[in-house]
Amino acid sequence: MAKIYDLIIIGAGPAGVTAAIYGSRENLKILLIAKNIGGQIKRKAIKIENYPGFKEISGRDLIQKFEDHLNKLKISVIIDKVNEVKKKKQTFFVSTKKKKQFSSRSVIIASGADARLLGIPGEKELIGKGVSYCAICDGFLYKNKTTAVIGGGNTGFETAIFLSELAKKVYILEHSPEVKADKINQKIVKMSRKIKIITNAVLLKIKGENFVESIEYKDNISKETKILKIDGVFVEIGNIPSADFVNGLVDFNKRNEIKIDSKTGETKTKGLFAAGDITDIKFKQIITAAGQGAIAGLSASKYYYKGRKL
Amino acid sequence: MAKIYDLIIIGAGPAGVTAAIYGSRENLKILLIAKNIGGQIKRKAIKIENYPGFKEISGRDLIQKFEDHLNKLKISVIIDKVNEVKKKKQTFFVSTKKKKQFSSRSVIIASGADARLLGIPGEKELIGKGVSYCAICDGFLYKNKTTAVIGGGNTGFETAIFLSELAKKVYILEHSPEVKADKINQKIVKMSRKIKIITNAVLLKIKGENFVESIEYKDNISKETKILKIDGVFVEIGNIPSADFVNGLVDFNKRNEIKIDSKTGETKTKGLFAAGDITDIKFKQIITAAGQGAIAGLSASKYYYKGRKL
Repeated sequence: MAKIYDLIIIGAGPAGVTAAIYGSRENLKILLIAKNIGGQIKRKAIKIENYPGFKEISGRDLIQKFEDHLNKLKISVIIDKVNEVKKKKQTFFVSTKKKKQFSSRSVIIASGADARLLGIPGEKELIGKGVSYCAICDGFLYKNKTTAVIGGGNTGFETAIFLSELAKKVYILEHSPEVKADKINQKIVKMSRKIKIITNAVLLKIKGENFVESIEYKDNISKETKILKIDGVFVEIGNIPSADFVNGLVDFNKRNEIKIDSKTGETKTKGLFAAGDITDIKFKQIITAAGQGAIAGLSASKYYYKGRKL
Repeated sequence: MAKIYDLIIIGAGPAGVTAAIYGSRENLKILLIAKNIGGQIKRKAIKIENYPGFKEISGRDLIQKFEDHLNKLKISVIIDKVNEVKKKKQTFFVSTKKKKQFSSRSVIIASGADARLLGIPGEKELIGKGVSYCAICDGFLYKNKTTAVIGGGNTGFETAIFLSELAKKVYILEHSPEVKADKINQKIVKMSRKIKIITNAVLLKIKGENFVESIEYKDNISKETKILKIDGVFVEIGNIPSADFVNGLVDFNKRNEIKIDSKTGETKTKGLFAAGDITDIKFKQIITAAGQGAIAGLSASKYYYKGRKL
């Protein structure tokens, strides 16, 4: 029979990595299954300045430090996508896209969230041809070009600030009357001569033959349809938590987030915990996700050793 | 009239520092009042290995990094002890031991916890004369000497591991039948030839003329009173949260911790938030305190700007 892990952690963003560090220090045999190491930090366009301990660090460097930590603790990591989590009696069974199956006594879901799509004509057709959800991956293509960022939240602003370093012009389009980015980001954008904010702008269409050429939006005040000629568009309208692979074992809220007891990370299924952006915690930050990961890791350990009557 | 801050934060451990970083990035005028920078990290005897981002870091270095972060954001810090927090209408008034008074629109309490005393004869009399609550401060005095650590939790074990590097012999005394330290610490202690664990040991007395000479304890199994000759004793039986300076404005649980909504850091008083070991969060870790600090900082910002109708 295959090895049974003490704890399987799904996802290796800040929540999953921290859960692994804590679980490992509790001497649990851990398997970490993730699509990548770093989660949303991978898409982080500008330097991280709000993770205590680093007054400034690039996403890439922080991910490297997480990896170093995992390596030091000799935590097994498998790069794969989880398709299903089932529970039979006291054992969890986790099956993956690469057709592997693993089993464990406890599970922590820290699979984070994926970029939300606009869902308008031209978007899917032009992904990778001027439509991007990751400025740090694709931004370098837009040197001296004109770009648009869709979304006036923090990520949208940070993406625009990052792009303004090399692009000729950056538009931020926000559908509501006001932007939602924090004050410090608003201040930086205000000082930039390259960035222009357009509020009340509802995206209608992305146009282009082989590559993005323009976007069409409705001005919600004048009700006119307007066209912006651009070379690339970065969509930063938030994330969609995705944990359909645990259907039945957890409860979801309206935003499709897993409901947890925020003091313990417990879901409604015994032995199954969740942490980070996949959960219904209010603030989604690297440091809050890490904190929640520690909580889930310690709770999983308590659950495991109680079951073993140690 | 004196300047009114947007936010006063009490305490500069991981929770207070993170709250300050987040509040500052929200453009709040912040005053940080604390007895010291670092809080309980100052007393951390062995290297910190469970703060993601650093696979290993000394308490001193982590505190320095926190200070660098505060300095970069130009956050005002006052080293003082808070005596009282009052609220009149929408304004908080904070008075200190050095007889200063400050006012603000919102307050975050992150004052952490102090070392818990044993409350037995000889303890208070011999503080600084062989009785210590901080191995990192006083450990170096015990080179080739015999020491005892009271408390079989994580901090007790870590203190013993630290002391074993230079002391001749280290006893760990735990009053209950089992120690509570995490598995990794138990493993390290088991491998050390210098450390001996004594369970079921209830401390009765610390004895010594001008300096600690011995401790007296009851063996809870044999019911005998036993004496250990030692040169120094480190008390690590946990911490006492202390926030009597906000009496009336918050509710406390049985352990004298401030009750909060763990998703927002809110207390029962509007505009008054709490984070870290002073609160009723279940797990008390550096990373969880930092996460809670971010939550309190963001909640305070939301509260402040809502009041300003921005």
